[in-house]
Amino acid sequence: MEQINFIFGIHNHQPTGNFDFVFESAFNKSYKPFIDTLEKFPEIHITLHFSGCLLEWLEDNKPSYIDRIARLVENGNVEILSGGFFEPVLAMLPDRDKIIQIEKLNHYIEKRFGYKPRGLWLTERVWEPGLAKPIAQAGIKYVTVDDYHFLGAGMQQEELDGAFITEEQGYPLWIYPINQNLRYTIPFEDPQDSINYLRKYASEDENRCIVMADDGEKFGVWPGTHDIVFKEKWLEEFFTALQDNQDWLKTKTFAEYYDNHAPKGRIYLPTASYFEMSEWSLPAEAGQKFEEYVDKFEDEGTFADIKPFFKGGMWRNFQYIYDESNWMQKKYLHLSNKLEELREKNPELENNENFQKAREHVLRGTCNCAYWHGLFGGLYLPHLRHAIYSELIKAARIIDQELDEKKFRIETTDLDRDGRDEILVTNTAQELFFVVRPHDGGYIEEFDLTDKSYNVLNTLRRYKEGYHNKVKKATTETNKGASIHDSIRAKEEGLEKLLNYDNQPRKTLHDHFISRSVTLEQFQKGNYFEESDFLKANYDYEIDKRRRSILMKRDGWVNWQPFRVEKHLKFTRAKILVTYKLENKGDDNNSFRFGPEFNFAMLGGDSPDRYFQCDQIELEKSALNSSAVDTDINSMAVVNEYDKFKIIVKSHSSAEFFRFPIETVSHSEDGFERVYQSSVIVPFIFLEFQPGEQKELKFELEVKRL
Amino acid sequence: MEQINFIFGIHNHQPTGNFDFVFESAFNKSYKPFIDTLEKFPEIHITLHFSGCLLEWLEDNKPSYIDRIARLVENGNVEILSGGFFEPVLAMLPDRDKIIQIEKLNHYIEKRFGYKPRGLWLTERVWEPGLAKPIAQAGIKYVTVDDYHFLGAGMQQEELDGAFITEEQGYPLWIYPINQNLRYTIPFEDPQDSINYLRKYASEDENRCIVMADDGEKFGVWPGTHDIVFKEKWLEEFFTALQDNQDWLKTKTFAEYYDNHAPKGRIYLPTASYFEMSEWSLPAEAGQKFEEYVDKFEDEGTFADIKPFFKGGMWRNFQYIYDESNWMQKKYLHLSNKLEELREKNPELENNENFQKAREHVLRGTCNCAYWHGLFGGLYLPHLRHAIYSELIKAARIIDQELDEKKFRIETTDLDRDGRDEILVTNTAQELFFVVRPHDGGYIEEFDLTDKSYNVLNTLRRYKEGYHNKVKKATTETNKGASIHDSIRAKEEGLEKLLNYDNQPRKTLHDHFISRSVTLEQFQKGNYFEESDFLKANYDYEIDKRRRSILMKRDGWVNWQPFRVEKHLKFTRAKILVTYKLENKGDDNNSFRFGPEFNFAMLGGDSPDRYFQCDQIELEKSALNSSAVDTDINSMAVVNEYDKFKIIVKSHSSAEFFRFPIETVSHSEDGFERVYQSSVIVPFIFLEFQPGEQKELKFELEVKRL
Repeated sequence: MEQINFIFGIHNHQPTGNFDFVFESAFNKSYKPFIDTLEKFPEIHITLHFSGCLLEWLEDNKPSYIDRIARLVENGNVEILSGGFFEPVLAMLPDRDKIIQIEKLNHYIEKRFGYKPRGLWLTERVWEPGLAKPIAQAGIKYVTVDDYHFLGAGMQQEELDGAFITEEQGYPLWIYPINQNLRYTIPFEDPQDSINYLRKYASEDENRCIVMADDGEKFGVWPGTHDIVFKEKWLEEFFTALQDNQDWLKTKTFAEYYDNHAPKGRIYLPTASYFEMSEWSLPAEAGQKFEEYVDKFEDEGTFADIKPFFKGGMWRNFQYIYDESNWMQKKYLHLSNKLEELREKNPELENNENFQKAREHVLRGTCNCAYWHGLFGGLYLPHLRHAIYSELIKAARIIDQELDEKKFRIETTDLDRDGRDEILVTNTAQELFFVVRPHDGGYIEEFDLTDKSYNVLNTLRRYKEGYHNKVKKATTETNKGASIHDSIRAKEEGLEKLLNYDNQPRKTLHDHFISRSVTLEQFQKGNYFEESDFLKANYDYEIDKRRRSILMKRDGWVNWQPFRVEKHLKFTRAKILVTYKLENKGDDNNSFRFGPEFNFAMLGGDSPDRYFQCDQIELEKSALNSSAVDTDINSMAVVNEYDKFKIIVKSHSSAEFFRFPIETVSHSEDGFERVYQSSVIVPFIFLEFQPGEQKELKFELEVKRL
Repeated sequence: MEQINFIFGIHNHQPTGNFDFVFESAFNKSYKPFIDTLEKFPEIHITLHFSGCLLEWLEDNKPSYIDRIARLVENGNVEILSGGFFEPVLAMLPDRDKIIQIEKLNHYIEKRFGYKPRGLWLTERVWEPGLAKPIAQAGIKYVTVDDYHFLGAGMQQEELDGAFITEEQGYPLWIYPINQNLRYTIPFEDPQDSINYLRKYASEDENRCIVMADDGEKFGVWPGTHDIVFKEKWLEEFFTALQDNQDWLKTKTFAEYYDNHAPKGRIYLPTASYFEMSEWSLPAEAGQKFEEYVDKFEDEGTFADIKPFFKGGMWRNFQYIYDESNWMQKKYLHLSNKLEELREKNPELENNENFQKAREHVLRGTCNCAYWHGLFGGLYLPHLRHAIYSELIKAARIIDQELDEKKFRIETTDLDRDGRDEILVTNTAQELFFVVRPHDGGYIEEFDLTDKSYNVLNTLRRYKEGYHNKVKKATTETNKGASIHDSIRAKEEGLEKLLNYDNQPRKTLHDHFISRSVTLEQFQKGNYFEESDFLKANYDYEIDKRRRSILMKRDGWVNWQPFRVEKHLKFTRAKILVTYKLENKGDDNNSFRFGPEFNFAMLGGDSPDRYFQCDQIELEKSALNSSAVDTDINSMAVVNEYDKFKIIVKSHSSAEFFRFPIETVSHSEDGFERVYQSSVIVPFIFLEFQPGEQKELKFELEVKRL
């Protein structure tokens, strides 16, 4: 009798930090109706995965939904996969944390669903050969990744009708290939098409098996899919067809297959994710070329043939493309390592409540969505990054206050692993944390209000993206039902005007030297010249721990004349006092506007409870996404009533204050969108130097809790 | 002043098991004259790497050569890189062994050259992201890999003028990109071309650096290169040009650059090696397609542009393409793990001489050359595989005799990590070791004479290689001076006649059921049908430890009739007694020829001290690469006078003995070549069965030491 085993898997996830209404909407549009439908088909076996982030929300908000799933599990219809609890890309974690995260979800599944999971959903199917070992060490027997991974290892599509076994350092792990054809047709084509496709694989060989596993959000959350899948009953029809054909079409869970079959062969897979990820993870220039070739091959009709060999970047590329992603990930790593060091010194900490809390926060700070960018906002979304920082800052606060107490500490470490040390300033008494980066411009990289779990420098520069050349062509009209991969839409008109790019991060204490003629608009857009080499240069530095200060200095040039900058940062109470000593080392007069840049990532540019404020010019609640030049003032504040703090930028001499927002244009599931990232304040001061002349300028950055 | 830093590195290696005359020839053609030339240029700084395998030979045979290098190191001209001591591909080792291997070479360098090495030569530049951690743990600060690795991560060629920093789980490692342009022009194009190329990179930026590092054998060993490099003085001219241009062209060692510069940026690299390796490591079908596209893109002129995205397999693919490579590697892993288990139980073993010896043998068994196949024979060369097995068998023997003593042991373990257990039979008293594989045909996978450090089943099946379609076009004429990558040559005419392929391994106790009409030639070539499904089927099995026997049984079919085979293996003294019970379970008569296959890998098919022998037909010293059918005999022996053993295949009933060699056709640096792999003996017996009839057949395999 000819037959085929069919494993159907669904992965449901909402990220840490997503808005509650997004969880609620996804639940109503997808997670709930999916189970409503499934319950009608007691003969169908499928596999489900829920990320820990989503499970926590469900337990808090829809516990009876979990009960329903537990009943399906009990009845043998459903297998639940494990995974990294907070849905991290496993490759970015130390092995120790990979195992902790998987075991945490194993434990939950065991407790809630009554059995020990053996399968793992691999976040974003980001595979690296080294993963097999820690995954196996966490008790997992099998994972599933795309057939693209296998084709990339030189296998042929027709061979991919079973499970394969790999190993790392001797630790074995089964890998099931996900069929891309079904991943593209389900739920976008007629259900019968998928049945017909499966029919072609039916044979006398009872070991054959085809896997389709993909995001649950394709069933209801993605634009247009709720109508297709539920209102127009795609899913019910598909399940009906599966049930009607069960004489030859055997729906199986991964576990059922695992228990009754042997692997078809051995395999080693390269670093890979799904094909689209390999494009998204390329830097802009390479990404654009990659896409051009994909289009060319598609036109020539050779794409399907070439695709196995045509490979873009790997997921970890995001960490070198986007410094901001790298910084978050390395901050996580820093804290995770710190906890591990403490635990190694004192193994009893394992049972310490504060230690456990800190570790929970650290782990929660690994949810993948904020660390990368593809079709969805991801890294571009400030609230997702903020959620990560909040968790990490909470962990750091527990460490600093409870586990490794110190009131004030200045230490150096290469936190971001670029080969050069950063300076970490922990002010526990004032609940402040700063990182100063003497290289690349001597700026402040991170600025945390630890009591608020808030990183004021959670900014994102304006990166050139490969897809930006399409922004002009995008329309605001929707194209219902088209696959999310095809449509070019924009959430508002005129986004192409926002396509300005930054050559440096948008942080605090970047030293700008500009000519008198540069306008606010030019400066905001980056259409001007820096008249010096200081902006991204490496400063020498000295730390004076007793005086709580850092002195950075450097010889360079301004207007092509030799010039010296010393900047001295003194951390005093809830304030940083910044003293610049500027010296014209040239033989000629030198004049320019000088201004240090300050950034404030306020999570909303146009929100009534967040605004610019300056009493000197009776500026009352000016929106954080407004641009202006305010002259002859010496201070400007940003106020955040929601999080209850205010930060004041003060110049000891009066200045011309530039202020403007940094807004990015990025992909979202609803098309291109504008995203407010931060508000910039630069107090510019016009300066004229005689040869050999020195001047001193003082600025302050002060935090006030409201 | 415009300038460019230029790092020139040379990697010298000869594999464990290579013939002494090959070492000697490489020394005279390349290693020695290279240093003769270098010594004349005291202002040039270069970096050298010698594998531990080569260093051991040099210490034994040319110690003064090492003294000369030590002087160059002392003078500051030369940096010596570390690496895995026995030149293993690091990715195939457990992390523990990666570190041991690197530290072993570190230690040698420290002792012999007086400094702690910080750089590592990465065997075959096989990179996986997980490697950064163990490499860094072994005290290494930097490695060098191809620019192809970097382009594959989406970087642009023009960015690759410095060193980059990566990390794994927080462990940092610098990576220098090797410039492919220079790798292709040195030493094949005019020396001035390379100088002109470097000139283009000269700039005011004193951080810029270009690296060329490649195999030392390109300088003298590769066909034609000794004349170019030394007789026609390519190297002297190149060094002269470097010296003449030292005002702007700064030759540096990796260490000198590392000490005085910062990394240019962060990077994560995908699984990769050099481009050619990515082609070689594909299975035949994919490899052929890959090559066709490379040719197509080259014709279109788009290849250079597409190449960064066009990626074949990764090195570990060799372990699933070639079961024989996998078996060696997993045997190594098995023994390494066994030693580690023993050490964990008894940490004092670390200082035990036998333990140290066993570990040394295990490590020596990792030399990469025998594990893969590209342009050189590698895996196809029986003496290289034999060298690996010798080391591993020596290690196993010490373990069994000294560390974990047992006279006789039958145990099961999934040694090759295919998800199914093999049966390991250790007969310490008789110095024999067997592995029986109940699945895939119930055959004997490995057959070691442990006192001789000899695996009689060190065979290689005839694989289809992507390049076989070129064998017909190959000529026996040489094309002096052409790059080794371009030429299509053959070491003899008519090799295309040897292009026969095996669908199963060539081991022992494969059960053949063939019709009466199959000739020796058809059988040898594989141009016949198996009349049953037993050849590659999974047998159920029972182990009787007390009786030292294994019973395998299975119901299948012969001539489309139900049929049952039981094969019983009894290990008795230096003998295996094999009893087949065959049963016709069909309703009709059934007749066929039945014969179990035996293989003998004798390391030489046409050698006077190795031959077939059968006194029943006065067969005296018949060459092991001869084919014949000898009828009405009941035994046939293979004799190895060199290694002093004889193995006799005996049938209890008289049979028709097929014997023939397995010869492969593979790439070598001198063109396609025929390689003798093993000699096959199959005693065929014609059998006729009534419905329900059972028959019993007995065979013996006996070892005699000479």
